[in-house]
Amino acid sequence: MLNIGIIGAGRIGKVHTQSIVNYVRTARVTAVADPFITDETAAWAEGLGAKVSKDYLDIINDPGIDAVLICSSSDTHSQISLEAIAAGKHVFCEKPIDLDVGRINAVLQALEGAPGLKFTVGFNRRFDHNFRAVRKAVENGSIGKVELVKVTSRDPAPPSAEYAARSGGIFMDMTIHDFDMVRYLSGEEVESVYVQPAVLVDPAIGEAGDFDSAVITLKLKSGALAVIDNSRRCAYGYDQRAEVFGSLGAAICGNDKPSCAQVWSDAGETGDKPLYFFLERYMQAFATEVEEFIQAVVNDTPVPVDARAGLAAVLIGIAATESAKTGLPVKVG
Amino acid sequence: MLNIGIIGAGRIGKVHTQSIVNYVRTARVTAVADPFITDETAAWAEGLGAKVSKDYLDIINDPGIDAVLICSSSDTHSQISLEAIAAGKHVFCEKPIDLDVGRINAVLQALEGAPGLKFTVGFNRRFDHNFRAVRKAVENGSIGKVELVKVTSRDPAPPSAEYAARSGGIFMDMTIHDFDMVRYLSGEEVESVYVQPAVLVDPAIGEAGDFDSAVITLKLKSGALAVIDNSRRCAYGYDQRAEVFGSLGAAICGNDKPSCAQVWSDAGETGDKPLYFFLERYMQAFATEVEEFIQAVVNDTPVPVDARAGLAAVLIGIAATESAKTGLPVKVG
Amino acid sequence: MLNIGIIGAGRIGKVHTQSIVNYVRTARVTAVADPFITDETAAWAEGLGAKVSKDYLDIINDPGIDAVLICSSSDTHSQISLEAIAAGKHVFCEKPIDLDVGRINAVLQALEGAPGLKFTVGFNRRFDHNFRAVRKAVENGSIGKVELVKVTSRDPAPPSAEYAARSGGIFMDMTIHDFDMVRYLSGEEVESVYVQPAVLVDPAIGEAGDFDSAVITLKLKSGALAVIDNSRRCAYGYDQRAEVFGSLGAAICGNDKPSCAQVWSDAGETGDKPLYFFLERYMQAFATEVEEFIQAVVNDTPVPVDARAGLAAVLIGIAATESAKTGLPVKVG
Amino acid sequence: MLNIGIIGAGRIGKVHTQSIVNYVRTARVTAVADPFITDETAAWAEGLGAKVSKDYLDIINDPGIDAVLICSSSDTHSQISLEAIAAGKHVFCEKPIDLDVGRINAVLQALEGAPGLKFTVGFNRRFDHNFRAVRKAVENGSIGKVELVKVTSRDPAPPSAEYAARSGGIFMDMTIHDFDMVRYLSGEEVESVYVQPAVLVDPAIGEAGDFDSAVITLKLKSGALAVIDNSRRCAYGYDQRAEVFGSLGAAICGNDKPSCAQVWSDAGETGDKPLYFFLERYMQAFATEVEEFIQAVVNDTPVPVDARAGLAAVLIGIAATESAKTGLPVKVG
Repeated sequence: MLNIGIIGAGRIGKVHTQSIVNYVRTARVTAVADPFITDETAAWAEGLGAKVSKDYLDIINDPGIDAVLICSSSDTHSQISLEAIAAGKHVFCEKPIDLDVGRINAVLQALEGAPGLKFTVGFNRRFDHNFRAVRKAVENGSIGKVELVKVTSRDPAPPSAEYAARSGGIFMDMTIHDFDMVRYLSGEEVESVYVQPAVLVDPAIGEAGDFDSAVITLKLKSGALAVIDNSRRCAYGYDQRAEVFGSLGAAICGNDKPSCAQVWSDAGETGDKPLYFFLERYMQAFATEVEEFIQAVVNDTPVPVDARAGLAAVLIGIAATESAKTGLPVKVG
Repeated sequence: MLNIGIIGAGRIGKVHTQSIVNYVRTARVTAVADPFITDETAAWAEGLGAKVSKDYLDIINDPGIDAVLICSSSDTHSQISLEAIAAGKHVFCEKPIDLDVGRINAVLQALEGAPGLKFTVGFNRRFDHNFRAVRKAVENGSIGKVELVKVTSRDPAPPSAEYAARSGGIFMDMTIHDFDMVRYLSGEEVESVYVQPAVLVDPAIGEAGDFDSAVITLKLKSGALAVIDNSRRCAYGYDQRAEVFGSLGAAICGNDKPSCAQVWSDAGETGDKPLYFFLERYMQAFATEVEEFIQAVVNDTPVPVDARAGLAAVLIGIAATESAKTGLPVKVG
Repeated sequence: MLNIGIIGAGRIGKVHTQSIVNYVRTARVTAVADPFITDETAAWAEGLGAKVSKDYLDIINDPGIDAVLICSSSDTHSQISLEAIAAGKHVFCEKPIDLDVGRINAVLQALEGAPGLKFTVGFNRRFDHNFRAVRKAVENGSIGKVELVKVTSRDPAPPSAEYAARSGGIFMDMTIHDFDMVRYLSGEEVESVYVQPAVLVDPAIGEAGDFDSAVITLKLKSGALAVIDNSRRCAYGYDQRAEVFGSLGAAICGNDKPSCAQVWSDAGETGDKPLYFFLERYMQAFATEVEEFIQAVVNDTPVPVDARAGLAAVLIGIAATESAKTGLPVKVG
Repeated sequence: MLNIGIIGAGRIGKVHTQSIVNYVRTARVTAVADPFITDETAAWAEGLGAKVSKDYLDIINDPGIDAVLICSSSDTHSQISLEAIAAGKHVFCEKPIDLDVGRINAVLQALEGAPGLKFTVGFNRRFDHNFRAVRKAVENGSIGKVELVKVTSRDPAPPSAEYAARSGGIFMDMTIHDFDMVRYLSGEEVESVYVQPAVLVDPAIGEAGDFDSAVITLKLKSGALAVIDNSRRCAYGYDQRAEVFGSLGAAICGNDKPSCAQVWSDAGETGDKPLYFFLERYMQAFATEVEEFIQAVVNDTPVPVDARAGLAAVLIGIAATESAKTGLPVKVG
């Protein structure tokens, strides 16, 4: 029985906790820490049998805890990761590990010195049933050699300009998931990136120095291509689709919907729009990613997404940010 | 070069004529006869190089004509068929050959005495690309042994009660196509039929002694089942679908639409409704059925739908009409 | 906090228990009873904090228990229901309440004498997201007045002939769900039924006096029609679809699948087949039905499926069984 | 009755001729010219009542001819256009007018001096039912303000390297249609273009100095974005799809298929792949474009695609070709 400490009891911290309670027989949440924890959340955590604290060091320093889930604010991820590794704990770290490559490398280095520890990054979309089915078709050779990966990723509603300003920019905050998806679906590294950015949704985001729309072209190491289209606003909900083209065919997937029912009438044939919110769309994926991390710890097998994947996506994000600034293609690296 | 005479220059007569002009290289329409032909239609026929007459006997008696397409009113089909056969002409006869079994048998008998002549019945749906693809899956064994055929057949708008009253009833007028479809898709004969009829669309149709809605259950000779659902009115257009279930799977088809475009918005995902009118939906099928009849004549090969198919559908229709009257299952034939 | 006793710890009893643990905040499982409980199941139940017993009377007689879920073998449902009602407990009873109308009426009578108690029957499909969306379209008038309900219900694999023999027959065991679905989707009562049964899957089922395939036509009180097609075997998995046609259009739904991914290749466009097993397909529905029962108890609101729905489906099943025997349409009730 | 001369009796010349014969009541083909005309083609043309010649000047100089369709080899389009305009004939010119901007401008200038003449360019895809439905959704405001146009355009099989070498390159030969589609669907002009090209299909095409794959990003005048993905080879046939995203939603379309039939089996759900060949996919579009040109002439209304559209697509093609060479984004025009 693995004892888990949850660091950060916001939205995603609660989702992961609930996944462990509902679906994972081999682990239990024994501690939750959050400096701003509400009474309600504290009561909920205690109801699950967990100790509650405002200081995450209570978890780091607790020898009874085997693994931590770092769900705190992004700027604390690398620091807490380092402390957790030093304390001999397995780590599930929400993305990104850090926006700074030096700090990510510090985590990678710490992991080299702790070969028995598991460390994974929360790229939840890799665990989605649809994307996994596409990846499986690529892996089993159904579509031959990969030639093009297309990722559509459009958020239902834009963040505030304030959030955009301190998020590291759209490429580090939003597209980073899509960069990981390109690597996941293709099984390849990215060589260079060109970004055509735009501000089409909210001028305030532009005034804050960020973009809200983009088409991003990537060249992969093998010579294959990839393209991502992003928008911070999508009128019909959360649009998350992918297509991979190869020498023998294509593997594609669309959106999940509340139901497959349709109404046929004089006005046409109408069905549900996609699930609106990422927690609904990726509910199953969030559960699976935590389950598989815990399995990797329990069985001492490789984690599904390792720390280098976290670094790789950030490196592409940095190149994309530069391309958006210069208007030129940029090498990743 | 086959010389064709068109008997009856109403809607369907014109469709067939145009199909020959547009698509058939080995035949030409040399004569058109219709007692009520309009000046406009006569001008159109002459523009195509055809002689125009009010008397169909001008076609029957014309030794230069090789084949006739009988597109006149239903109650004249068997009589004109007999005269055409006697005159040594190949015959394409619109459905039904007759509502009276004795008269159909007279045509069958005449054909036995004229082994060189081709005779086909206009069950156009057999030539539809979708139904053909389903039939092909049945024939090539993809779904194993047939267990159930389901046919959905719903007209866009009801006929007048007056039409219903003199049509021979919904089962002879409308369902007859679906009876043929069950035979076509299954490759089997029908043993018995049970009808659950209803008047749900237009009370005047009921007052005229007919029905406008029905569910029809059929038992096939092999023991397999079939079911047809009919309505004389369908708010979203002409609904023409089929499903065949077998021991290894199912083959299904849906409706054709003006385009596959969809609009995705806050209101859902909306696409086109089906093609509304049978001439649009079966445009390609009408052309193919005439083409294949002419090919059968030119190459002396079997016609795609023979006179016995015409008889078989009428026999099922008669049993269905009786079942609707008695409320009991009825043996066919 | 509602205290729940689970009577019968087989497959479905475990599913319901897990749903309460995972999804229901206002209830807890405090007791589990099963005469044949395994050590493993007992350990699992105790791990959830429940008392374990071999005798369901330990639950009936436990004054601390507010509600029971009756998941024992079908022939015990009505008896245990009566005892639970007498003991003042709310009841969630798996379908069917009984195969005997007299015993169902005894339960209905007992409920009349206990107006404060909630009683629901486990017609899980009413809670499925797809069927609910179809029902919603009917209820909100999107399709106008109902004219035809079509239910496709095909099991992935047949039961043993032995099971078939003691199941009450396909119409009481399998189609009963579809009878309830017709009532649910139409919002109407069934007046008469005609069955065209067949043995197409397993001759041993026929030798045991049962059928494995059927087309069932129903006439509803309003004059509208319904049709169900059943098979005990479906090569591509569990086929559960519905269509409701009305004066203004149709509402339809299809199957759920593991993913929406497709592979496009020279061989065509291929996607997943439906979820194979009813526990996968209706996983969400099973959770929702238990949740809503508990809500009805907690809030003292009407249950989503009442005891009369249980009686109505059985009455249709009895008429269907007779129709299959006599080959004639049969009035319900 | 418009008299039409066909210049160039290759594949596309024949398609257009047949469209006029089959579908256009207000025009007839009275002359066909082709320096390499076969006996068979000559016989076919004469069978349609057309004069046959090896010299297109016989058509240009024929005062009885009202309009010409220029279907000759691409390098003759602008020259013959100029001669036809000088001779007072309306012109339907296959794409491209020319690869040289100066020569296109010469045609534009000639047209300015002949205001009564109609001139159209054969961008057939604008007449496709699917793309038109998408455009209609954009035009009627269903998706709000356009933000992104995505065009997928993948040919079934690559041309020879020899063809590629003399085609003007993939962007002038193949993508030119997609450039026009971006303009058509958005209703906007293109400001700049960035190309990420690749040789993934046939190394010989690369050795000939061309590419066989590309992702092309475009910035439109309004600030909206567009992206095109191209491949010269597609294992499942001719892939021609589009998506337009706007502030209120998206309009999308997919491929046409031989039928909508599917086989459901243990192996999954399989349907037809797209129509393989452009003449099948765009059969209806080819007919409509000729029809609408002739209508524009007969009714003296604007042509659906004017000469400036021909120039605009070439200008984008030139910029794209330069971007592929330099690896940098390039301004159009």
